[in-house]
Amino acid sequence: MTLSKKDILEMGSLSVEEIQVILKTAETLKEISTRPIKKVPTLRGKTIIHFFYEPSTRTRTSFEIAAKRLSADTVSISASTSSIVKGETLVDTAKNLEAMNPDAIVVRHRAAGAPHLLARLVEASVINAGDGMHAHPTQGLLDMMTVREKKGRIAGLRIAIMGDIAHSRVARSNIVGFTKMGAKVILAGPPTMIPMGVEALGANVTYHVEEAIKDADVIMVLRIQKERQQAFLFPSEREYAQCYGLTRERMAGAKEDVLIMHPGPINRGVEIAPEVAEGPYSVILEQVANGVAIRMALLYLLLGGPR
Amino acid sequence: MTLSKKDILEMGSLSVEEIQVILKTAETLKEISTRPIKKVPTLRGKTIIHFFYEPSTRTRTSFEIAAKRLSADTVSISASTSSIVKGETLVDTAKNLEAMNPDAIVVRHRAAGAPHLLARLVEASVINAGDGMHAHPTQGLLDMMTVREKKGRIAGLRIAIMGDIAHSRVARSNIVGFTKMGAKVILAGPPTMIPMGVEALGANVTYHVEEAIKDADVIMVLRIQKERQQAFLFPSEREYAQCYGLTRERMAGAKEDVLIMHPGPINRGVEIAPEVAEGPYSVILEQVANGVAIRMALLYLLLGGPR
Amino acid sequence: MTLSKKDILEMGSLSVEEIQVILKTAETLKEISTRPIKKVPTLRGKTIIHFFYEPSTRTRTSFEIAAKRLSADTVSISASTSSIVKGETLVDTAKNLEAMNPDAIVVRHRAAGAPHLLARLVEASVINAGDGMHAHPTQGLLDMMTVREKKGRIAGLRIAIMGDIAHSRVARSNIVGFTKMGAKVILAGPPTMIPMGVEALGANVTYHVEEAIKDADVIMVLRIQKERQQAFLFPSEREYAQCYGLTRERMAGAKEDVLIMHPGPINRGVEIAPEVAEGPYSVILEQVANGVAIRMALLYLLLGGPR
Repeated sequence: MTLSKKDILEMGSLSVEEIQVILKTAETLKEISTRPIKKVPTLRGKTIIHFFYEPSTRTRTSFEIAAKRLSADTVSISASTSSIVKGETLVDTAKNLEAMNPDAIVVRHRAAGAPHLLARLVEASVINAGDGMHAHPTQGLLDMMTVREKKGRIAGLRIAIMGDIAHSRVARSNIVGFTKMGAKVILAGPPTMIPMGVEALGANVTYHVEEAIKDADVIMVLRIQKERQQAFLFPSEREYAQCYGLTRERMAGAKEDVLIMHPGPINRGVEIAPEVAEGPYSVILEQVANGVAIRMALLYLLLGGPR
Repeated sequence: MTLSKKDILEMGSLSVEEIQVILKTAETLKEISTRPIKKVPTLRGKTIIHFFYEPSTRTRTSFEIAAKRLSADTVSISASTSSIVKGETLVDTAKNLEAMNPDAIVVRHRAAGAPHLLARLVEASVINAGDGMHAHPTQGLLDMMTVREKKGRIAGLRIAIMGDIAHSRVARSNIVGFTKMGAKVILAGPPTMIPMGVEALGANVTYHVEEAIKDADVIMVLRIQKERQQAFLFPSEREYAQCYGLTRERMAGAKEDVLIMHPGPINRGVEIAPEVAEGPYSVILEQVANGVAIRMALLYLLLGGPR
Repeated sequence: MTLSKKDILEMGSLSVEEIQVILKTAETLKEISTRPIKKVPTLRGKTIIHFFYEPSTRTRTSFEIAAKRLSADTVSISASTSSIVKGETLVDTAKNLEAMNPDAIVVRHRAAGAPHLLARLVEASVINAGDGMHAHPTQGLLDMMTVREKKGRIAGLRIAIMGDIAHSRVARSNIVGFTKMGAKVILAGPPTMIPMGVEALGANVTYHVEEAIKDADVIMVLRIQKERQQAFLFPSEREYAQCYGLTRERMAGAKEDVLIMHPGPINRGVEIAPEVAEGPYSVILEQVANGVAIRMALLYLLLGGPR
């Protein structure tokens, strides 16, 4: 299987066929992480730079583990320890990194579009590990992998996404991805957090979470950023939990075989009740495990063949 | 040699036999670090996460070097660059890391008991690299290794531990460990820094350091934390040095073949005079070298066999 | 080819023959970074500690990539995450690192002479990755490699160095290195930024950048540190650019085949105009690529043979 692409920048630029190749590859590679010796020599001698302008544990760790299980060499750069403090532009940083002949650059940046800019400037493969409120395609892919693993398919399912749709790169990647793969996406949350015109992406909108929950095969709960409270987008965590949180009470209205997902890190008792996050329908940790597999698949497909 | 344990959390939960297995394994593995090619393939394909909530050079570097000399893959997470800043609980962080299938998690945390909590939550082996004022078992083990290397035995020796016993995880691990191995531990320091009832651990207490020094086979000097001065536990560094520091003058009252130890980093001229720290009885740097060997031994014993 | 040295501390302590060995080795090793599998087993089982007291992206990344392409194991320590915050002296840190048997320590430090101190204290090879305003020998070497690659020789060339000579470790390493290799070095910049008596190093001085540009075969533009403005060494960035910047207008007075160099990161529009930095004469990115090759050469020459 191959992928005739240099970069993974956003869900919108992946075709249905490409997504299927990525998911199948990830399903195959997942088994490596359960072996006693969790390592294959596939990417030996490849250099991968992890370039994180924003703090991150789970995504950076997931990418680093994926790279190492494929035997690639990794170098990690974080904004706090880098010459970005000296005010270098992203363009110059990109060209400088490129001059060291990396095979891939994995980038997280607070500015939407930064990975796209980088991708145009360098010959190395660029993987977007989250850019501002724009896109987080590897999260979207691992979410699809998790749904397919548990439900056997994506097409025809109803996916409810609950919470701060407007400020979420995860939401955007999932709306685009699941819609493309034939699922129906329903968005639910406070009116201040649902962007105008989001229906153009192919999703339905409701302001009553119960309505979204009722027929959903999958409920994806987004993280509430506490900073948004200061911007008066919601009054308090307690009130958010009461009006929009995925509580045990609300779960009573859900399908028997619903899947509960969350991109993490969760705010326990705010957007999701602890007993729901840890309940029998939750696949939150499967999402994390599949994250390593999806990143292995992307690195393998982008760097593994002859270039 | 094997160790039928999942985790290394504190000295108290290791039996005499287990400590002997660890020390013997470390003595064997120590030689690897002096070879031209300092690497064996034992842990190839194992993933070790180094998770340090508190800043650390020597302990983290020691663990990373130990892991790499055994060919394991390592990923390092520090509190400052991680999503811990987003307020995730330790429980959630633990479960997330676990979902990425690490073989071991090495953790340093300011909260006593954090590694124990982690160990209960994950299938991976957990090694405590220091938790609050509670335990630092790998320091205790490397101290025992150093004493055994230099004195040929531990049983029957008199070990004086000087300084801030109350706030020291090193002291606690050493009191428990040396006592268990048949040595006699004497604690000396200012009354404000010796916890009430510490004799219950099997140690003797004196407030006169000269008395502790007199018959000691080993003098272990603890680091004075400058923060404690602000809490009025000692009046000034100069006065601490005069009353409780290991000076050249006080060394005159010690045995001819005494060993001087310190877990580092040292405050020169405060708890220990520079000429003592660098003097002929000092084995401070041997402690550091043995630290790598002990950590290699633990990783080997926990991860090396078929699981 | 061999190098009978333990350390690389400054350009002044390298002989012409040693510099030639380093450049030749780097020219040979450069090709490795363009292979599909960018890795040779030469330094397998060697431990290299990257010890950066000052923030750095490009230099640290360049060293780490160089080490990994030679299969060495690397551990990275930055001031912000280390026990340096606990106030340990450099001497004690050095001895502690040494006790863990590293093969090389790569150090960047704000204090001039810190790598020299380190080198005297440890058996490991020490490479100076920049110390205060003193020396940056790997930058000097990569600059010479770039000139030799493009011009076929160094001897007999005229090298103009423009900018803040007084506060630049890059300038000092290049003045010493290029002069030693038979080139003529001309320094140009504001009088406040040219140190008194610098002619003793063998360089000429002018306060008119046009004069330096006119006959130069190579123009090396230094970075202006914005902190210097606060020290009143130059009035404003705009005025600096007008009086001393390498603008397109000034380039009109240069030779047809001049090379433009800059150690990076560049301040676009201050010491160099963007169209010059990206223009046809610029070899700024070749400098970065050669940086990896020079660092591979040094690690290979210092650690590669039997010791």
